[in-house]
Amino acid sequence: MHPENIKNLLQSVRDGALSIDDALQHLKQLPYQDLGCAQVDHHRELRQGMPEVIFGEGKTVEQILAIMTAMSAKGSSVLVTRLAQEKSRKILTVFPAACYHGEARCLTLEQKPPEQRGKGTILVISAGTSDIPVAAEALLTASFLGNTVEHVYDVGVAGLHRLLARGEQLAAASVIIVVAGMEGALPSVVGGLVDKPVIAVPTSVGYGASFGGIAALLGMLNSCAAGVTVVNIDNGFGAACAASLINRV
Amino acid sequence: MHPENIKNLLQSVRDGALSIDDALQHLKQLPYQDLGCAQVDHHRELRQGMPEVIFGEGKTVEQILAIMTAMSAKGSSVLVTRLAQEKSRKILTVFPAACYHGEARCLTLEQKPPEQRGKGTILVISAGTSDIPVAAEALLTASFLGNTVEHVYDVGVAGLHRLLARGEQLAAASVIIVVAGMEGALPSVVGGLVDKPVIAVPTSVGYGASFGGIAALLGMLNSCAAGVTVVNIDNGFGAACAASLINRV
Amino acid sequence: MHPENIKNLLQSVRDGALSIDDALQHLKQLPYQDLGCAQVDHHRELRQGMPEVIFGEGKTVEQILAIMTAMSAKGSSVLVTRLAQEKSRKILTVFPAACYHGEARCLTLEQKPPEQRGKGTILVISAGTSDIPVAAEALLTASFLGNTVEHVYDVGVAGLHRLLARGEQLAAASVIIVVAGMEGALPSVVGGLVDKPVIAVPTSVGYGASFGGIAALLGMLNSCAAGVTVVNIDNGFGAACAASLINRV
Amino acid sequence: MHPENIKNLLQSVRDGALSIDDALQHLKQLPYQDLGCAQVDHHRELRQGMPEVIFGEGKTVEQILAIMTAMSAKGSSVLVTRLAQEKSRKILTVFPAACYHGEARCLTLEQKPPEQRGKGTILVISAGTSDIPVAAEALLTASFLGNTVEHVYDVGVAGLHRLLARGEQLAAASVIIVVAGMEGALPSVVGGLVDKPVIAVPTSVGYGASFGGIAALLGMLNSCAAGVTVVNIDNGFGAACAASLINRV
Amino acid sequence: MHPENIKNLLQSVRDGALSIDDALQHLKQLPYQDLGCAQVDHHRELRQGMPEVIFGEGKTVEQILAIMTAMSAKGSSVLVTRLAQEKSRKILTVFPAACYHGEARCLTLEQKPPEQRGKGTILVISAGTSDIPVAAEALLTASFLGNTVEHVYDVGVAGLHRLLARGEQLAAASVIIVVAGMEGALPSVVGGLVDKPVIAVPTSVGYGASFGGIAALLGMLNSCAAGVTVVNIDNGFGAACAASLINRV
Amino acid sequence: MHPENIKNLLQSVRDGALSIDDALQHLKQLPYQDLGCAQVDHHRELRQGMPEVIFGEGKTVEQILAIMTAMSAKGSSVLVTRLAQEKSRKILTVFPAACYHGEARCLTLEQKPPEQRGKGTILVISAGTSDIPVAAEALLTASFLGNTVEHVYDVGVAGLHRLLARGEQLAAASVIIVVAGMEGALPSVVGGLVDKPVIAVPTSVGYGASFGGIAALLGMLNSCAAGVTVVNIDNGFGAACAASLINRV
Amino acid sequence: MHPENIKNLLQSVRDGALSIDDALQHLKQLPYQDLGCAQVDHHRELRQGMPEVIFGEGKTVEQILAIMTAMSAKGSSVLVTRLAQEKSRKILTVFPAACYHGEARCLTLEQKPPEQRGKGTILVISAGTSDIPVAAEALLTASFLGNTVEHVYDVGVAGLHRLLARGEQLAAASVIIVVAGMEGALPSVVGGLVDKPVIAVPTSVGYGASFGGIAALLGMLNSCAAGVTVVNIDNGFGAACAASLINRV
Amino acid sequence: MHPENIKNLLQSVRDGALSIDDALQHLKQLPYQDLGCAQVDHHRELRQGMPEVIFGEGKTVEQILAIMTAMSAKGSSVLVTRLAQEKSRKILTVFPAACYHGEARCLTLEQKPPEQRGKGTILVISAGTSDIPVAAEALLTASFLGNTVEHVYDVGVAGLHRLLARGEQLAAASVIIVVAGMEGALPSVVGGLVDKPVIAVPTSVGYGASFGGIAALLGMLNSCAAGVTVVNIDNGFGAACAASLINRV
Repeated sequence: MHPENIKNLLQSVRDGALSIDDALQHLKQLPYQDLGCAQVDHHRELRQGMPEVIFGEGKTVEQILAIMTAMSAKGSSVLVTRLAQEKSRKILTVFPAACYHGEARCLTLEQKPPEQRGKGTILVISAGTSDIPVAAEALLTASFLGNTVEHVYDVGVAGLHRLLARGEQLAAASVIIVVAGMEGALPSVVGGLVDKPVIAVPTSVGYGASFGGIAALLGMLNSCAAGVTVVNIDNGFGAACAASLINRV
Repeated sequence: MHPENIKNLLQSVRDGALSIDDALQHLKQLPYQDLGCAQVDHHRELRQGMPEVIFGEGKTVEQILAIMTAMSAKGSSVLVTRLAQEKSRKILTVFPAACYHGEARCLTLEQKPPEQRGKGTILVISAGTSDIPVAAEALLTASFLGNTVEHVYDVGVAGLHRLLARGEQLAAASVIIVVAGMEGALPSVVGGLVDKPVIAVPTSVGYGASFGGIAALLGMLNSCAAGVTVVNIDNGFGAACAASLINRV
Repeated sequence: MHPENIKNLLQSVRDGALSIDDALQHLKQLPYQDLGCAQVDHHRELRQGMPEVIFGEGKTVEQILAIMTAMSAKGSSVLVTRLAQEKSRKILTVFPAACYHGEARCLTLEQKPPEQRGKGTILVISAGTSDIPVAAEALLTASFLGNTVEHVYDVGVAGLHRLLARGEQLAAASVIIVVAGMEGALPSVVGGLVDKPVIAVPTSVGYGASFGGIAALLGMLNSCAAGVTVVNIDNGFGAACAASLINRV
Repeated sequence: MHPENIKNLLQSVRDGALSIDDALQHLKQLPYQDLGCAQVDHHRELRQGMPEVIFGEGKTVEQILAIMTAMSAKGSSVLVTRLAQEKSRKILTVFPAACYHGEARCLTLEQKPPEQRGKGTILVISAGTSDIPVAAEALLTASFLGNTVEHVYDVGVAGLHRLLARGEQLAAASVIIVVAGMEGALPSVVGGLVDKPVIAVPTSVGYGASFGGIAALLGMLNSCAAGVTVVNIDNGFGAACAASLINRV
Repeated sequence: MHPENIKNLLQSVRDGALSIDDALQHLKQLPYQDLGCAQVDHHRELRQGMPEVIFGEGKTVEQILAIMTAMSAKGSSVLVTRLAQEKSRKILTVFPAACYHGEARCLTLEQKPPEQRGKGTILVISAGTSDIPVAAEALLTASFLGNTVEHVYDVGVAGLHRLLARGEQLAAASVIIVVAGMEGALPSVVGGLVDKPVIAVPTSVGYGASFGGIAALLGMLNSCAAGVTVVNIDNGFGAACAASLINRV
Repeated sequence: MHPENIKNLLQSVRDGALSIDDALQHLKQLPYQDLGCAQVDHHRELRQGMPEVIFGEGKTVEQILAIMTAMSAKGSSVLVTRLAQEKSRKILTVFPAACYHGEARCLTLEQKPPEQRGKGTILVISAGTSDIPVAAEALLTASFLGNTVEHVYDVGVAGLHRLLARGEQLAAASVIIVVAGMEGALPSVVGGLVDKPVIAVPTSVGYGASFGGIAALLGMLNSCAAGVTVVNIDNGFGAACAASLINRV
Repeated sequence: MHPENIKNLLQSVRDGALSIDDALQHLKQLPYQDLGCAQVDHHRELRQGMPEVIFGEGKTVEQILAIMTAMSAKGSSVLVTRLAQEKSRKILTVFPAACYHGEARCLTLEQKPPEQRGKGTILVISAGTSDIPVAAEALLTASFLGNTVEHVYDVGVAGLHRLLARGEQLAAASVIIVVAGMEGALPSVVGGLVDKPVIAVPTSVGYGASFGGIAALLGMLNSCAAGVTVVNIDNGFGAACAASLINRV
Repeated sequence: MHPENIKNLLQSVRDGALSIDDALQHLKQLPYQDLGCAQVDHHRELRQGMPEVIFGEGKTVEQILAIMTAMSAKGSSVLVTRLAQEKSRKILTVFPAACYHGEARCLTLEQKPPEQRGKGTILVISAGTSDIPVAAEALLTASFLGNTVEHVYDVGVAGLHRLLARGEQLAAASVIIVVAGMEGALPSVVGGLVDKPVIAVPTSVGYGASFGGIAALLGMLNSCAAGVTVVNIDNGFGAACAASLINRV
């Protein structure tokens, strides 16, 4: 539940529009709401400045709908990540206002446009064209969390001039998310060029000894460019959350 | 070379205290200086806002001394990380003004007190007492890079009340570095309590199936607390660099 | 074969209702019964206090039916685990009294209600909603083996207050099974709060560097909370067996 | 701090032997005591029924002494595990009443004989002679935590008759800890023979493809004997803690 | 090409039934026959005492048919392993005399009954019912290579009495192949009971930390029963080849 | 863009056939062309002597078509690797002059026959019939890049005479690509026979402990034949690129 | 205890030289003798045809001496493997008739020359000079177990002619043990040349991606030469036990 | 044995300076010379154009001396790699003309200056100062094998300008060896800049998730720059052999 919603609730109490008992009932659900299959953490937005986000993988459509219903009833916008297209179809019939983003495999249900809370621009860079789905998840999440975003795709290290031509864009960003598969070398190169926090996202793009992204992950963890931090393989969402928190420091 | 040093050099040219040819000679070495065994990157401070730091492991004392001499001649403060005590002894005889920090296994040679460039406080938390060496490296580096630092040690998740008692200190920090070995669960718990960027540092503390820190590393990469980013095992230095860049956003 | 069945058999001999030769024939099959594809261990219930359970994966429907027939003919209740829904359909046509539990992917054929042999309550906790199938397997098995069971789902460490609110339920349990994927940190936190045996079940929930549950498994094996023991990834069944034996100590 | 100590303290307050302010001072340290390098968790004994134990690896002698001093000042008995003989020598000069157990690599400082809290006997079995150090750690810990203990060593599966000859001892135990390196098959065999909880401890005994205990660990996690739970490689201590909690169920 | 075929060919030359040129043509193809996609090694039967066997996985039906045609034209019996049922259908239309063995996933085309070359009996044991397909591949191969074979299925270590009851059968065998998944402990137990060569075959039966058979493989490689040798995961074929060579020593 | 194309463009300027502004427009796109989803590196042919090649996996048909259009518009021949047959069908409808090579899973669009730039012959050897798809990718790529190529298939080390019979062909080659799965021993044997550069390509052919090609990869990296270099698992394309560069030295 | 010793004991009873009570006392210890730290398996020689062998690693000198004393008191010859030279010195002072074999890191105490029980010759081949210690352990063990042995060292696959020149020696052997590190390709080549059982022993010789012998181990497990079986890394002892059992088939 | 030596030998026969019997004796040893512990491959120089090189690790000083004596007696120059300084001291007393290269950990015994057989220059690049030992091994080996060599050290990707400044040197080389630890990204960047064969050598420089060079190795195998081939971790020697063969194409 967004802090603004709580203020409104308290205002309603002061105005007499809401009985104290009813207000109490609402506030009792604040920390979390027990749906049986899930304990929806309405408190997270207050505590962490970010709403709870639904991890779509491994949940049934029924479970997702139950959580979405509970969240939207509290006025929270909703983001579902890692949601297969097939599942999204059933959800869209229940929440026609929701929007499915195929490239990013995410669904959003916006109750109101996201409040712009980030100071600067979050720039998302991808090494290859095949890395775009992960980059798109990062881009969508960062935008959903109230940040200005930009992106540059397909500027891998085997053709350095493509990256070097973007010097100004790199310099203008507040935080940079670098998405790369295969050997995952791009964050090291970017990290050596800028004085901004760089968040590296390894992807599972590659084959053979890429081992589903392990090669890229290890490359990024061992980056010789000091100041690069790393998130899980294909975790565009997590990178965007971190970038979002950094963008508010 | 620090931007201030360049300004001074240019001022000397304007003042006539330095010939143009001599200035040119200095500036030619700006991008990097070829020592044969090393290309000292004097340009890094300009480009990245952080001086080049010497990774002590795998370098001979002679190589370290050569690089330190080149850097200090340009007025740069010097930080050597992962330096065995034995090697430090020989270095201290050449640079008596340097200081060896045994717990952190680092050596510093400060030409002047670090300029305070960070906005807020960087808080370093360790899960256990055995994790302190890595935490100390992070603390020392963050301080060397011009940040206000604080620390809390031994607040692992098996005794949660020790962490929960530090709520205010957590809330007051600008960036939090969480150092943990074994199962590496502390960053997830901290990340769930605060709305600040959390940088997780896995340590090699543990035995058996900790596999030299892999367990902690994987735990942190899979953190269910969105917004946690990770650095290499035992890489207190890298966490501090990232925290330092974040602290300037 | 349940001890009670053997007593009855012996009673029938004393009563003259069963000839000695026929009784012998029954008892000869006691240690195990050779079905060709399987040696059904009717002796297990006597020796271990738990009936043999059929691991459904990798067995053909014909093999499962043969074993079920042999077991039910001896009066044993039957539990089949890791059984795909498709296979269960064919089995239900042969054993219409059996029941398929979709969430837990198990099939039960109860000859009589399970004898309550556990002293206290077995509590099953899951970190996330996606971990429920494994938790459900544990819950069903523990119940099948004659224990009182309770469950709490979706109380992962990124929202600690959800777990802390369950303090009394934790304290009242006799044994606690904690099911978690991703970083698998929940057992450490629970283990630090209670003075009861905690059995940790890593799940394959997660992606990328979760490596199909390895991250959670390693986290649990390295738990800083002394007294946590671990079973195989996704092995809700095994955790329930262990909890069941503990509940009878 | 042991519950008995708290009762005594409260009694002293009632009797007037202790001022309320002084009592308050003591109780304030109850949850934990901040030693800088460590937050000693005096509360653990109340919360978990087991005193905090000092993990000796990676701690300096000075740190261990500081924690021991704080704990013994509260009347707690002390157990230090994974302590190299060399470190123990210095500690014994400060705490001459302490005792170093070379085989188990543990040090104990008993303030009073351990209260017998376990109901039955904890039996520790080792597969080989080389596994004895880990078994000894389990044995010592279980005894320290107030249990009756027994042991049988060198009864690996390549000579089954040695194990089968111990049938009565197995049947009489309340909980069984099975310590094995190499292929780690002994827990499966034991687990198939008894109706008691079996805790498996893989050891790093072996070479080549034993990979420091991974082979044994995986063997135990995949045990076909339902009800076997597993702890970390070489973690005799953890197995004993779990067995101790089980022995009180 | 079988030695007998060569003798016949030479006899035909002596008898004048075959011209020297024609014989030469046949003998030129002896070492191998170039089919473009494959170099059929007709010489193997002479050199190794076993005909070349076709590994069906990753070969197209066309390639398999080409090799079968070349081999059968030389009078060799043919064994195709790891052949999907679907592929076998097309092959059976071309070679109606061939026989597909579904459980073992093998196809055989026998030109004449296999010559009995093994001295004793090869006994194939499986730990579980789910291991039967691999055991069946071993059984079929050993029989194809001219050995007397027996099998015992589902005698895993969690119910030792099932194995111990087979003492005479174990003692009577010449070579024993032990097939087991999960923790792969059965070969150690068998190896400790007999004085015969034991060949261990790990299977991919299991889940989670069985890692597709790695747990069983490592267990077998680390067997404490001296004299156990190991083949690749699921490699019933290879075990039978080795057993066959041993059976002729 | 091929150097020849640039010369022609400049010639057109000199001839007055192309205005300076139009030429400039073309040359501006030389370094790379921004398609949004991809930055096509037209400069690569100049810089590296090889055109950019499209990695088909993980790209949508739309993305591939966009890149092909951009490349072919510049007169470049196009090679798409790792392209599923299904995707190729849609591409062939847009580029009917293109050709799909099913065995190699590649698509080529040749604007003109490849210029013969290699000095000698590149010989591609495969250990088994199942390795042919990877060998075919290498063969096709080497030919596309302007080399004379030859191949020998199915000459694995278990039948050495098949390889030894090819002595002259080995000796005549300029560079040898050796493709092998399973234990990957063939490159060591070939490397010990010749005085030519040998490029080893591990394949994912095998099962069980081949771990998708890791066994072959490790075998090749540890080759006792000095001078063998290795590429990624199944990377016939990369081997051919390296061989092509070597063939021009 | 050797069968011959038992016969003698029984003969002494018949002759009246030994009282029945004393004989009973001896026979009671037959199955195993409890030394506290070890259960010496005197029964193994009867059951498996091979005396128990002492694995020296991880045992103290005191433990080894206790076991040797118990075994030699029963008239058994003793073999201790993996014994560091330092430990051997102390043992030789107690058992001056024992002999330490430095290259093989083994100690033998022969009570009488080993009975020749093997039918043919066991041939031990090593790929490199650095593999000799493991080969020597195999050679010594095979000889100790009563076999005729031969060896050929340093015939790795990078110089095939060295192996091919030994054709007759290969053909004359009954069983072949092939010891190889690095890529471990030699067993495949040998296995393709002979019609004898080949036991492959991977060694930890190598560096980097040999991963302590994993590369060689995987290579051997994936051998394309059917009939090769494998033992643990550096396990020359185990290979010799297996070869010895095979040599008696 | 160098081809020149054979010519001389034959000339001596023609001249009558050497008896036919003596010449025969020399030539009989040509294929290899049996030293018991080693089969020295004098034929390699003829067959592969490179003399056999002695891998010093795991060989005793006595073994190395025996091989050196055999090789130098044939007039071959000798290179010993991976030789610890300690061992080299003893060798130098026997072969005072030999030279130990501490940085490269190699020993050379040159009978005559190496014949210049390479066409162009082999350039060795290292990413960091700590990678120099491996680079030095490559440099020394390439020079020993008759190539012109150059080197550039410490030009890692975190300071790209240091590499870009070497454009001409890169362009002038015939083959480039790139040595890098940590994330191993340098070969990808170099490979994207040049049209020469690039051989990547991962080093074990790094810590934590570098896993002794695995991170760098995987990075290089997954290089997005087509045409990069890879050798084993720390294998400067192997890279130089490959580069040497390429330099003669």
